Amino acid sequence: MSDPKAHFSCIACGTEHNLRDSVYSCSNCGNLLEVRQDSSIFTARSPEEWKTLFDGRLAGRPGYHGSGVWRFREWILPDLPEEDIVSLGEGASPLTTAPRLSEELGVELLTKQCGHTLSGSFKDLGMTVLVSQVNHLRKTGRDIPAVACASTGDTSAALAAYGAAAGIRTLVLLPSGKISAAQLIQPLAHGARVIAIETDFDGCMEHVQKLCVEQGVYLANSKNSLRIEGQKTVALEICQGLGWKIPDWVVIPGGNLGNVSALTRGFENLKSAGIIDTLPKVLVAQAEKANPLFHSFQKEFAPLEPMQAQATQASAIRIGNPVSFPKAITALKACNGRVASVSEQELTQAARIADERGLYLCPHTAVAVAGLQQGLNEGYIEKGAQVVVVSTAHGLKFTEFKTASATDTVPEANLGSKRTPLEVASVYSEVVDAALGS
Amino acid sequence: MSDPKAHFSCIACGTEHNLRDSVYSCSNCGNLLEVRQDSSIFTARSPEEWKTLFDGRLAGRPGYHGSGVWRFREWILPDLPEEDIVSLGEGASPLTTAPRLSEELGVELLTKQCGHTLSGSFKDLGMTVLVSQVNHLRKTGRDIPAVACASTGDTSAALAAYGAAAGIRTLVLLPSGKISAAQLIQPLAHGARVIAIETDFDGCMEHVQKLCVEQGVYLANSKNSLRIEGQKTVALEICQGLGWKIPDWVVIPGGNLGNVSALTRGFENLKSAGIIDTLPKVLVAQAEKANPLFHSFQKEFAPLEPMQAQATQASAIRIGNPVSFPKAITALKACNGRVASVSEQELTQAARIADERGLYLCPHTAVAVAGLQQGLNEGYIEKGAQVVVVSTAHGLKFTEFKTASATDTVPEANLGSKRTPLEVASVYSEVVDAALGS
Repeated sequence: MSDPKAHFSCIACGTEHNLRDSVYSCSNCGNLLEVRQDSSIFTARSPEEWKTLFDGRLAGRPGYHGSGVWRFREWILPDLPEEDIVSLGEGASPLTTAPRLSEELGVELLTKQCGHTLSGSFKDLGMTVLVSQVNHLRKTGRDIPAVACASTGDTSAALAAYGAAAGIRTLVLLPSGKISAAQLIQPLAHGARVIAIETDFDGCMEHVQKLCVEQGVYLANSKNSLRIEGQKTVALEICQGLGWKIPDWVVIPGGNLGNVSALTRGFENLKSAGIIDTLPKVLVAQAEKANPLFHSFQKEFAPLEPMQAQATQASAIRIGNPVSFPKAITALKACNGRVASVSEQELTQAARIADERGLYLCPHTAVAVAGLQQGLNEGYIEKGAQVVVVSTAHGLKFTEFKTASATDTVPEANLGSKRTPLEVASVYSEVVDAALGS
Repeated sequence: MSDPKAHFSCIACGTEHNLRDSVYSCSNCGNLLEVRQDSSIFTARSPEEWKTLFDGRLAGRPGYHGSGVWRFREWILPDLPEEDIVSLGEGASPLTTAPRLSEELGVELLTKQCGHTLSGSFKDLGMTVLVSQVNHLRKTGRDIPAVACASTGDTSAALAAYGAAAGIRTLVLLPSGKISAAQLIQPLAHGARVIAIETDFDGCMEHVQKLCVEQGVYLANSKNSLRIEGQKTVALEICQGLGWKIPDWVVIPGGNLGNVSALTRGFENLKSAGIIDTLPKVLVAQAEKANPLFHSFQKEFAPLEPMQAQATQASAIRIGNPVSFPKAITALKACNGRVASVSEQELTQAARIADERGLYLCPHTAVAVAGLQQGLNEGYIEKGAQVVVVSTAHGLKFTEFKTASATDTVPEANLGSKRTPLEVASVYSEVVDAALGS
């Protein structure tokens, strides 16, 4: 067996661990791990050869052949046999134009639709990598009885989908009585074992980590750096979609911040391969209710001061103590990154405006669009710039938010108008008035 | 100006009408229209040249350059200037594999995920064509004050999204008091003018048709054959995804039956271009509660006997008098098509089984999977066949159905088990039992 081309590597002390090991933090110093790809991987072909290879792998082919993650498989898990891949057609998502909104904002706005996927969020991009690796480990003799996460949202939905596809038991741990049946419907439908525990979220995290240490269960929470290798394909796809060029700006919502480090990592891989020369500028947009990165940014990226996150429509980024903070800081420094902080009013208004121009934003993507608006107002995003907003989930997952917006009942936001049906009698003249009146 | 390369043509008497005219049925005999492409379109290049052209148009490029509909633009609206296209990144959807389900069924099952799109259903494929044509007409001097449909579901959501993108007023007419706010949330969010009329669905259809005749509003209901030109790309994409080969079978749910004729039309275009020699076999699956096509099929495609459709989970195909029946019959005869009819029990079970193997079926796609199962049981679908199921919408649009399935409360179905969270105390040994017990 040849030497592996990728390892887990500690972001602080550099200690390496085998990708076959179930390690989620450094055994030497306890810090975060990242996947370190052998640098020879990116220079194994010339930039032109890479472009030709990746352009030749069309979206729409069956299974992993059409996946926007595995299109770049030489850069993801180079030691994984292709037959062990567990794919649900992730990635290969549109880069949607919005001419009306672009004109109003004064930029060329593109939306990378990472929520157009089986589970409806960008989490699929990482889970295909994690579950494929577990599938590989099990097929090569490792006894892994289950994959598990403590999650109440998109992470559990994505993990359950890929676990079901692979036939690997999936455990979802969450606090009892705090989640509605509708929120759990994806993992339940996929046959995941959903365990509601009489404790809080931290208590669930403790239990799941103990299951992983003592019972050999495989941890799928965002501490697991395998997921980043899948999520970095957002950057690879954006660049490929633009004809192997970078946009001026990428705007991305930030909560736990794994997606921020993944994004930069993808652009860095492209640079290592000689396909691009510089990284695009990155704007991370946070909700005001949970903006520890913004506070750090204001103090020239000072160390994290965890905060108590408050309720926000952007519920998936309601995180006061982000796991991937150190990685995100490194990432943002590498690309002259900035951080914006937007109010409930701003995100609600951004969603209303964008939806009425043909998008259908989840509240997190609305935070990103509101952040873009701030950047334009403050002048650091220049008029005429090409800007890619990373949409992290499908708006269809947020019917409550959409309903509150239509009825103008979003807490701490005031749109000044409702969007409700016009009730008319069945009289043609009344229908005409309703249809064509001002 | 050169002669137009496409016309509306009556499916009964052949009378031609200009694509620039707002006609939705034959002015001579009143029958359905279809878009007739000049046959020289398909032979303008050699089969190899077409494949190279279409393969060179990658998904993921910005706007219509990455669209799975406009990839085939020479075959869609050949006279439409590209700058008038209104695209939201439709099409270019995955062909998802399902190895576990394939093995259990004994076929190679692929799912064409037409619901992975901005509005969450395959209707986007047709609406991009219709709204682009209206956009073109308006830009070339036609006074069209609005696009309109009578719809309570996916059609109104798709129309509203494209209308918003184009900045064209969108009217949605529906019966007052019969639809919940949640069902209307997509058109409302996109700023459509939703008009709730004190009448039934037929009354709404009358009003909308009158608006089109008397006020110059443009009709977007399925009578409008422009939509078929977009929907036919499902067949084009399936064939391209399989390396320009056809599968043994395509299974598609059938209600109003526009999608059935669109599917066959796409394969016929490929045959006209010399890319394929024969059409694949097509199985249309209907819900037992609304199966007039099935009754016709049983009598060797006898004339339509409209029926009173009953309530079914597959609500979007609850249609007793399908508009596109004549087109569907012609289509099915051309490809040795068959029709299946499935019960609420069968569709509910199919969704449960498929979801637990990594898919996330809308109830209509569940009808198709249950139909496939019937075909295998009855033996007309051979073991080992390559079968593409056309998924018509995203499961995320059907949370009520998923919830009823999890709690085993779907009317007229009995799954024999629930999928609910396991409640445990915060004691590690109890968590282990719940997680790893049988």
